[in-house]
Amino acid sequence: MEGVIYLDHAATSWPKPPAVGDAMLSALEIAGANPGRGSHRMAVQASRVLFEARKSISNIFGIKNANDIAFGSNTTEALNLAIQGSLREGDHVIATMAEHNSVRRPLEYMRRLRNVEIDYVPVDASGAIDLMQMERMFRSNTRLVVCTHSSNLLGSILPIGEISLLCRKHQAILLVDAAQSAGVIPVNVQQLGIDMLAFPGHKGLLGPQGTGGLYIAPELDIEPLLHGGTGSQSEALEQPKVRPDRYEAGTPNTVGIAGLNAGVKHVLEMTPAFIYQNEWELTQHIMDGLSSVKGIRMLGPEIGQPRTGLVSFTVDGYDSAQLAFRLDRNYGIAVRSGFHCTPLAHESAGTTATGAVRASVGYNSTREHVEVLVKAVLELTGTD
Amino acid sequence: MEGVIYLDHAATSWPKPPAVGDAMLSALEIAGANPGRGSHRMAVQASRVLFEARKSISNIFGIKNANDIAFGSNTTEALNLAIQGSLREGDHVIATMAEHNSVRRPLEYMRRLRNVEIDYVPVDASGAIDLMQMERMFRSNTRLVVCTHSSNLLGSILPIGEISLLCRKHQAILLVDAAQSAGVIPVNVQQLGIDMLAFPGHKGLLGPQGTGGLYIAPELDIEPLLHGGTGSQSEALEQPKVRPDRYEAGTPNTVGIAGLNAGVKHVLEMTPAFIYQNEWELTQHIMDGLSSVKGIRMLGPEIGQPRTGLVSFTVDGYDSAQLAFRLDRNYGIAVRSGFHCTPLAHESAGTTATGAVRASVGYNSTREHVEVLVKAVLELTGTD
Repeated sequence: MEGVIYLDHAATSWPKPPAVGDAMLSALEIAGANPGRGSHRMAVQASRVLFEARKSISNIFGIKNANDIAFGSNTTEALNLAIQGSLREGDHVIATMAEHNSVRRPLEYMRRLRNVEIDYVPVDASGAIDLMQMERMFRSNTRLVVCTHSSNLLGSILPIGEISLLCRKHQAILLVDAAQSAGVIPVNVQQLGIDMLAFPGHKGLLGPQGTGGLYIAPELDIEPLLHGGTGSQSEALEQPKVRPDRYEAGTPNTVGIAGLNAGVKHVLEMTPAFIYQNEWELTQHIMDGLSSVKGIRMLGPEIGQPRTGLVSFTVDGYDSAQLAFRLDRNYGIAVRSGFHCTPLAHESAGTTATGAVRASVGYNSTREHVEVLVKAVLELTGTD
Repeated sequence: MEGVIYLDHAATSWPKPPAVGDAMLSALEIAGANPGRGSHRMAVQASRVLFEARKSISNIFGIKNANDIAFGSNTTEALNLAIQGSLREGDHVIATMAEHNSVRRPLEYMRRLRNVEIDYVPVDASGAIDLMQMERMFRSNTRLVVCTHSSNLLGSILPIGEISLLCRKHQAILLVDAAQSAGVIPVNVQQLGIDMLAFPGHKGLLGPQGTGGLYIAPELDIEPLLHGGTGSQSEALEQPKVRPDRYEAGTPNTVGIAGLNAGVKHVLEMTPAFIYQNEWELTQHIMDGLSSVKGIRMLGPEIGQPRTGLVSFTVDGYDSAQLAFRLDRNYGIAVRSGFHCTPLAHESAGTTATGAVRASVGYNSTREHVEVLVKAVLELTGTD
């Protein structure tokens, strides 16, 4: 993909650091066999790959015990494990209108299956929530609060620390969806008081698709989503209690996780704080550059405010899908258009009918990239 | 891993054909973005990777519509989707004692969660079942029959065609676990009357770990295991009905699936029938070679009978784990010892106390490999 200006990092980061592919090939070549299921050296090597990745991820999220991380194939799996595994018949849940369908659909499934009651905290046009309004939603049976760390449409950053305090006060479990924040916003699960953290491997952590995971605080015992072989306690009818086996049935994606480890190491070297600062500056540059477009509406936080590395926008009189298509065909710029799997956030932004174009930057994005984007949008919309 | 004699193919095939790593790197480099979720060329490229892999897998299993395949991270996920997605409160299930924990544990979970009743058809020491006995187990509420195609401990091949006829007669759904047979025993889901087929990507199909899937017959509508974003029908609260979206929430493992496609193509070129014949001959050679060992007990079908490419054995007076360890350290031979996640099969074989050493061959195993194994076991057991 020569010459592509890639501004779809919120979907997946690209290109990955070269070390990612190298680590994957190396794992494919030397880490045959299933970790934890054989005593031969290749199985031991596979176990080591998983262990090292768990350690790197523990470093990035301030996790004390690496075995409290359960690997899975993507954030969606992690969120399903957290949601289906913690909710019981008749529980009450609070979520926000900024949630992705990977939160909303499992919650609505729980509503159908287990009569779970759900309240969604409204978000305003800037993507913010009213904490007082959220607190009024707590009930005696509120078991779980689910909150995205950053909206994948609006870019707003939600106040996880404050929400965590509300959860402590009302004895609810806090599940954070870090799809847009992992590797970008510094996160420490201990300090922030996060009980469960769902993260993708292939976005800000720079690993390959097919990876992700869930941090589960040691004192929580949720029901596994997958039941099956673990290489441990073979004779037991139930999943073993010991972690990480309890939440990792079946053959793990050793090759992908090796790549994820390389990606996380790259992030640790750059530091999330540095990556955030660079991405933030680029979003400001985009917003500044697009502000002269007639009829443009940029969603989410105002210029100058914190946001993750994405800017979604609509232009009056222009179809979002057409704009994105033209950016790709005429300029080689990859952005995303459509509904971004987050219908309630569109409702909040007033873009349910139009969808939006989303440009998102990443660890390797430059000022040049966003200048090409700005120039292209100006041209396509006839702005001088 | 220079000089390793790899005889653990039943855990995962190794080494993979070189095309597998190449395809993965290429996908990592050109198929950024999420398939089906962007209109830009890289997203289209990612969609193409998935589509081509679906077509290859359709070819190998005689599947008419490639969209009836749901990709997942391993066979365990596929089996959990099939089992949790099809069973309702109070249903009855028939399975066999040859099942892996990836079947037994989800079934036992359904017993606890949904009062599902389960009968396990006994297997004899050769790994065979009595079809008459199985038929007597059917009840009016038998909704599901789960059967492994081949035992991962005994190597026996179960009569799927006959079991399928019983299922038709009693209007039960047939779920086949192809963990040990995919890519090795020719399978045609239409001809065999298989309603759901769970398959690993990383064993006989020669793909990387982190891949696998479930074929779901078009007339079946089971509940998805994962609920989340699909890039389609964003506004809907439920998973869309359209396949494959219905059963594939979240970002797929495009990189892994690209590797899987390369693996499947390699199998299609060699043909499963050829691979089976080679593996079978090698197992016969192992059995013949080990037959002179004093106190040896080889599990599963007699010599001369059909079996997949594995031979499990115990030797009186020798600890299985120690034998496997010595094979690795002294001879560089990778085999597996232990309980292989299949406690009921051990019960049938009378090896619940001892475990067993399992040597398993694959698409690239040679007569030389198994001769080294035989010689080593003869030496370790003091057989001349």
